[in-house]
Amino acid sequence: MPITVVRTRAELQAAISRALTAAALRADVARDLAEEAVAAPRADDVTVPSLGLVPTMGALHDGHRRLAEAAVAGNDVVVASIFVNPLQFGDPVDLERYPRTLDADAALLESVGVDIVFAPELEEMYPGGEPLVRVTAGPLASKWEGASRPGHFDGVCTVVAKLLHLALPGPVSGVPTAFRAYFGQKDAQQVAIVRRMVKDLNFPVDIVSVPIVRAEDGLALSSRNQFLSDTQRDAALVLSRALRLVEGRAAAHEPLLPDDAVALIESQSGVELDYFDVVDTDTLEPLAFNCRETPFTGEALAIVAAKVGPVRLIDNMPLRAR
Amino acid sequence: MPITVVRTRAELQAAISRALTAAALRADVARDLAEEAVAAPRADDVTVPSLGLVPTMGALHDGHRRLAEAAVAGNDVVVASIFVNPLQFGDPVDLERYPRTLDADAALLESVGVDIVFAPELEEMYPGGEPLVRVTAGPLASKWEGASRPGHFDGVCTVVAKLLHLALPGPVSGVPTAFRAYFGQKDAQQVAIVRRMVKDLNFPVDIVSVPIVRAEDGLALSSRNQFLSDTQRDAALVLSRALRLVEGRAAAHEPLLPDDAVALIESQSGVELDYFDVVDTDTLEPLAFNCRETPFTGEALAIVAAKVGPVRLIDNMPLRAR
Repeated sequence: MPITVVRTRAELQAAISRALTAAALRADVARDLAEEAVAAPRADDVTVPSLGLVPTMGALHDGHRRLAEAAVAGNDVVVASIFVNPLQFGDPVDLERYPRTLDADAALLESVGVDIVFAPELEEMYPGGEPLVRVTAGPLASKWEGASRPGHFDGVCTVVAKLLHLALPGPVSGVPTAFRAYFGQKDAQQVAIVRRMVKDLNFPVDIVSVPIVRAEDGLALSSRNQFLSDTQRDAALVLSRALRLVEGRAAAHEPLLPDDAVALIESQSGVELDYFDVVDTDTLEPLAFNCRETPFTGEALAIVAAKVGPVRLIDNMPLRAR
Repeated sequence: MPITVVRTRAELQAAISRALTAAALRADVARDLAEEAVAAPRADDVTVPSLGLVPTMGALHDGHRRLAEAAVAGNDVVVASIFVNPLQFGDPVDLERYPRTLDADAALLESVGVDIVFAPELEEMYPGGEPLVRVTAGPLASKWEGASRPGHFDGVCTVVAKLLHLALPGPVSGVPTAFRAYFGQKDAQQVAIVRRMVKDLNFPVDIVSVPIVRAEDGLALSSRNQFLSDTQRDAALVLSRALRLVEGRAAAHEPLLPDDAVALIESQSGVELDYFDVVDTDTLEPLAFNCRETPFTGEALAIVAAKVGPVRLIDNMPLRAR
């Protein structure tokens, strides 16, 4: 089926309703066929159709492709939204020059099987200007990325709340529906904050985070990588090497010794470290235990941010003792 | 049917689903009967069932009864929530002594035909303590009631967002459903802020405001009125008299002369005026036009707050030129 591109809430809800109804019918037909074959229906045939939402700002790369593929694999109907959200930009110049590539984005999304692209105009999302009532991210936004981008995560929470409401499948379709939203683990703090928003405000949605996609040399994919020279790109590889260092120690149940990772990054010329730390995956608080002496147990997240040439890069890696 | 009292999200969603399914079946039966009688179905028979939500903090009086009656009259299934929300109290003593009268409240709600009471424990609403991610009311909360109650409307927005998500009918029931939430016009600023929240964050719900209920002497009903002595109650009547004064001028298309209303209140001993103003119903901004010279046209809202003895009272009246 060719992808459907819609611009307004009404068009989006109509497209979701049509697609879910079709999915429910297909499920019924499949169940009837199975019943004819097997004579008795099985309880696990009784599943509800599901809707996956993939919120993006467009300018899609292979990391987004992986997000969309995960949503398509896990759901009957998938909506990808493309909206460059001014609320989460601190710098108007940054917002202005953010790439807009709708046709290429829609082609990529269609190729992986996304059903609907929701690409609202600014006026559809913020009629009459910026919202007065907003979602605020609170203390989870005070450090790491939040420290260098004041207001950024409030803008993220506000637009994600809006997109979840706009795509919410139940009230219009009349089809009971599981609802999931997909976020890239690359933005680990965003994932933690969105999960916390869903919990604190009881949004009826499951948040799914999709692992980081890396180039063969280990660099985490980012639309910003294109601004790195070859030398800068080589230098940037120290970030994933530093993450792998503590990942290996965690897997081997050894003390993490994060100072070694910091020293490794600081020894790389052309790389200006902002932070490297080992934190709780949900709270983003630094681990309470002594990383220098105590053997690692359980799970955690290693996070890093650094400036390399003209670009600020972030990366992270889940740690797990084997 | 006896009223169902539930304590958790899962119980609430199961009760809503059962009630909506029953309502949809009744609608089908009614439609079938109508078709037998009339032979051809009419297009306006095709309506979706509706769910009404009445958020309260309990300690219900006749004003709440009117809210619940409006919800019952307008919807197939009605949920009333009873939750004393700590986030919207500035003073812990105030929170502690707020009356809890669940049995009497449930009896009142049952008598008017409410289907479900959602009375969650604190731990159900705020597991693990206060929420980190919240809804903030923004500039609409900076004056009038917000000026004397910092943080109050942020707490209101946060709990209303949670209650809307908890009661949201679609995803579980599988019945396409109109969703409405009912608020008393007595708290005019709360109504304006909740409406703005729904618009700014695209909640899939219609907000319905229900007119103020007054005692025979004109005093707006409030659970706080019980703390007034007879003399104080007589004094408090000046508030509705002052509102009626400008209401009459508005209806007669005359200049409003709000200074007269202010003078009337200030001449009443035992009443300490906080504010009296004529504002836009949606933005709560004072009217831009000259209330002293220009004949009134259109619509507006007169609002008043005053301290009478131990009690802070608020009241308001819609103004409309005839």
